[in-house]
Amino acid sequence: MKNLDTICSISTSQGIGALAVIRISGKDAFKIASKLFKDADDFKSQPSHFVKRFDIYDNEALIDQVMVVKFTTPKTYTGEDVVEITCHGSNYIQQKIIELLLKNGARLAKAGEFSMRAFLNGKLDLPQAEAIVDLIDSQSEAAHKLAINQLKGNFSARIKTLRDQFIELAALMELELDFSEEDVEFADRSQLSKLLHALKEEVFQLTESFKLGNVLKSGIPVAIIGKPNVGKSTLLNCLLKDDRAIVSHIPGTTRDTIEDNFTINGINFRFIDTAGIRLTDDEVETFGIERTFKAIDKADTILYMIDISETSLEEVEKELLFLENETDFIHKKLIIVANKIDQLNELPKHFIEWEEYDIAFISAKRNVNIDDIRELLIKHVEKQKITDTTLLTNVRHYDIMLKIEDEINKIEAGFTQQLPTDLIVLYINLILNYLGEISGEITTDEVLETVFSRFCIGK
Amino acid sequence: MKNLDTICSISTSQGIGALAVIRISGKDAFKIASKLFKDADDFKSQPSHFVKRFDIYDNEALIDQVMVVKFTTPKTYTGEDVVEITCHGSNYIQQKIIELLLKNGARLAKAGEFSMRAFLNGKLDLPQAEAIVDLIDSQSEAAHKLAINQLKGNFSARIKTLRDQFIELAALMELELDFSEEDVEFADRSQLSKLLHALKEEVFQLTESFKLGNVLKSGIPVAIIGKPNVGKSTLLNCLLKDDRAIVSHIPGTTRDTIEDNFTINGINFRFIDTAGIRLTDDEVETFGIERTFKAIDKADTILYMIDISETSLEEVEKELLFLENETDFIHKKLIIVANKIDQLNELPKHFIEWEEYDIAFISAKRNVNIDDIRELLIKHVEKQKITDTTLLTNVRHYDIMLKIEDEINKIEAGFTQQLPTDLIVLYINLILNYLGEISGEITTDEVLETVFSRFCIGK
Repeated sequence: MKNLDTICSISTSQGIGALAVIRISGKDAFKIASKLFKDADDFKSQPSHFVKRFDIYDNEALIDQVMVVKFTTPKTYTGEDVVEITCHGSNYIQQKIIELLLKNGARLAKAGEFSMRAFLNGKLDLPQAEAIVDLIDSQSEAAHKLAINQLKGNFSARIKTLRDQFIELAALMELELDFSEEDVEFADRSQLSKLLHALKEEVFQLTESFKLGNVLKSGIPVAIIGKPNVGKSTLLNCLLKDDRAIVSHIPGTTRDTIEDNFTINGINFRFIDTAGIRLTDDEVETFGIERTFKAIDKADTILYMIDISETSLEEVEKELLFLENETDFIHKKLIIVANKIDQLNELPKHFIEWEEYDIAFISAKRNVNIDDIRELLIKHVEKQKITDTTLLTNVRHYDIMLKIEDEINKIEAGFTQQLPTDLIVLYINLILNYLGEISGEITTDEVLETVFSRFCIGK
Repeated sequence: MKNLDTICSISTSQGIGALAVIRISGKDAFKIASKLFKDADDFKSQPSHFVKRFDIYDNEALIDQVMVVKFTTPKTYTGEDVVEITCHGSNYIQQKIIELLLKNGARLAKAGEFSMRAFLNGKLDLPQAEAIVDLIDSQSEAAHKLAINQLKGNFSARIKTLRDQFIELAALMELELDFSEEDVEFADRSQLSKLLHALKEEVFQLTESFKLGNVLKSGIPVAIIGKPNVGKSTLLNCLLKDDRAIVSHIPGTTRDTIEDNFTINGINFRFIDTAGIRLTDDEVETFGIERTFKAIDKADTILYMIDISETSLEEVEKELLFLENETDFIHKKLIIVANKIDQLNELPKHFIEWEEYDIAFISAKRNVNIDDIRELLIKHVEKQKITDTTLLTNVRHYDIMLKIEDEINKIEAGFTQQLPTDLIVLYINLILNYLGEISGEITTDEVLETVFSRFCIGK
């Protein structure tokens, strides 16, 4: 337990509630908290992890009747002495208790400072601490699962394995160094190359997984494109409205969603600016080639929408060819949305027999077959198999992983160019350093500040 | 402990926070909660009031690592078995845990249902339960103090004393009944009258205190009146802005104030519609006699504002006389605000020597002497001496108290009219019933529903 000052904070969500929780952590946590209670001796003798009722006084004025828990170091969240006060959730009371704590020598905790202390005291490694932010922010099942896997230490374990393997590689290189007089260099290097290749593959898989990990965390970007009046905003409304109806059926929870977000089977989708769709306006936008190109560029999945009552298959094929030539269209997941089926007596044969693309026949206006689109959206994600595999979800980790890839390439080139062993060992040491940066074994104040400033107050 | 079903709820403020608290109460609270944990046996053997870490699972999926406290009946908030789960404050997690509890047999708590059970199990009387709502809502020191006094049971104690005195009165009457053959009626009644008079005085004091109690709770209504362009909205801005600057200096607290509220020395003031003041518009309103009358009617304190650079004392006196004749002006607290002193070289002698009213010489534009108004506002309240005296703050109590006053008057008349003792005893019994309604000893489902529906969810 490092000798830091004592911090305090309101740890529950802002505003008025039935209850609120205030946390105090640090070497003087018990001393400072005890000054709030008339029965300070009672508090002193209270065992760790035991909940007891106390009255909080400001001089002679009773402020609140609260429940108090002492957590004695080291078995605490931060590793320091911790006090948790559960008070009535009035703003006045919350503020008053914090004021009393400040008056008695605590200071306000900065964002993430409790978790930073937990990290500094070895209670969490850095990816676990980072997982807490993602966990609190998680709005969908998938995002939650990624965060909780990371909190459990699965990601850290994978990094540790990687580190052990690079240490082994270094050891083998050192061995080679010892024997270099005897000229065994060549035989060893081919074996080393194999090991390096496996490691490269492993690192590559991780960096590749960032794309999926990142979209699962922040929502899969979807673009709806199509000519004016094909019904893009009506469809968007359908998808969002149904979702809103499912969401927040439990009082006391809210969903602070970005406006155009929705969830299917626990996966979050996020509509990006789609060729000038305005939910409230009539569809006055033009096809807007520039905007469509941009939307395609940013999207992971494209809903290509047509008015099937007045579009021929040839027209569609021509347009798709155009987009394939002009954009990165071919690398995107494409779903053809054939809208306005309510205006047809039967579905055009050409389209039914068309097997080149996933296609949904819908009426956005009459809310018909919208589930088909949902199924197609989710089919594409499930294809990618979100199993228990550890995915890279954190930009900081991703950036470091890219640097590691660079170093691996240098080592590979070094093998080909027959670079001296001690130079290659330097590269490996750099990689070990990078891996240490991810796990937090090697870190700077600056990195810590950046990581923990993403936290909310009170965590 | 009554045999009710098991309820659950999120008890902390809505939205995302570092932590959130979920409460479960009822006969199956332990059984239902244990189904969320893999280590259910560990939970079973956990002693009451101890905090322990558990993992919550939905089938095989880890949902969260949480802290759990069991509170074993009867030493709990509701009097029933209670479980408190402190989880990470993500919406997804909060919602998921509630879903799991519902799936395992709990149901969502209605607003105030935990407190209602506390009341039904004799943990709180009705005024104490009502105080919890006021406590959570309290935004100012004064409102908080009233609520906490009531929660401590001070108000209930006063009602109990009153009840005992009426029981004594009834006993004395019964005694008279026994002796009535012997014709001791007259002598006794004068003594009874004295006791009744004291009681009437006591009840009257309580009903009278409602006016102060109620404004302290919801804010003292203040009207700023005056001709166009005297600077009313500028003054209002001064008073509000300075207050906003003081408020919420602690991150994590917000103040959900009504827009035109501000606090001086812990007392809350509330600006009521004051002769058409618009904070954002220029002052285009006319003097608006009708509106001014209405504002005066609703106000407790009136800031009567003049432009001292162009108003004579005679004019002011004439206007005040007019208002005194036309409105209830004379019963309101009046502060004369002489604005625009920055446009004068010296203050007019007449006004300085004018001692009939409280007067503040200010420049709203230059923010000069605004504190003088604050002092005058607060002086009026402090005159009324908010001591530890129990004030009546609750409309329900007030309404019942008025009924008690009626019955006392009937008893008084009964004494004069020499009504038979047994009839008067009936009136006293009615009063005892009313007092029982206040304390909650006598109550109906309808009353309980009304009282507890004012609570927030989770309390």
